Amino acid sequence: MSLNPQYEDIGKGFVQQFYGIFDDPANRANVVNFYSATDSFMTFEGHQIQGAPKILEKVQSLSFQKINRVITTVDSQPTFDGGVLINVLGRLQCDDDPPHAFSQVFFLKANAGTFFVAHDIFRLNIHNSA
Amino acid sequence: MSLNPQYEDIGKGFVQQFYGIFDDPANRANVVNFYSATDSFMTFEGHQIQGAPKILEKVQSLSFQKINRVITTVDSQPTFDGGVLINVLGRLQCDDDPPHAFSQVFFLKANAGTFFVAHDIFRLNIHNSA
Repeated sequence: MSLNPQYEDIGKGFVQQFYGIFDDPANRANVVNFYSATDSFMTFEGHQIQGAPKILEKVQSLSFQKINRVITTVDSQPTFDGGVLINVLGRLQCDDDPPHAFSQVFFLKANAGTFFVAHDIFRLNIHNSA
Repeated sequence: MSLNPQYEDIGKGFVQQFYGIFDDPANRANVVNFYSATDSFMTFEGHQIQGAPKILEKVQSLSFQKINRVITTVDSQPTFDGGVLINVLGRLQCDDDPPHAFSQVFFLKANAGTFFVAHDIFRLNIHNSA
């Protein structure tokens, strides 16, 4: 495999599709379909999880309903195994919580003509006071 | 190759070593040694670069001298090709500029018993006003 010249469109398209599903409480659990049963890693606010069943459990344990999300930047790079590495920065507000900046890294791995999320690292950007 | 069980220590150790060199103006150009001549990608504030020579050019073009940096979180994951994916959040201040939050993604690829930075995505976390 080699570099996918469409990496920019793949990254932007994935981000739109992923958050479209994740941010809809009725649809949220379907994000599990982006992950592999065994080979996907998620780090959610420092908590490490491996494999779609545990990722689904985590997603279903989230207590908020509505998410208002604004994407600030999406930076994508092609990988030599045909995948796409994506870094997303943005802001989100869950229900009536205060809004926060967040960052999320996705590594999409190519598999049989499609992609799955091999790596997902999510963090709210909360820094200690200066 | 397979998952490297030391990924957490490798991620934390790399971050400390990398910024130790990058943040020292007399030493900064030596970060080029972390990158491959041809197979490394850098996205710096949305600007895409490939290969160590161009990465060195970029690093040498940075106009600030001093960087004060505080790391907030380092999240690392092992990859199935023996590499380590790292997401860093922190804050930095260049010379007398105002301080900013930043995020930086590194993908370390294993090569002959050591690692090189195959992917590097850097962004200051500057969001449009709400």
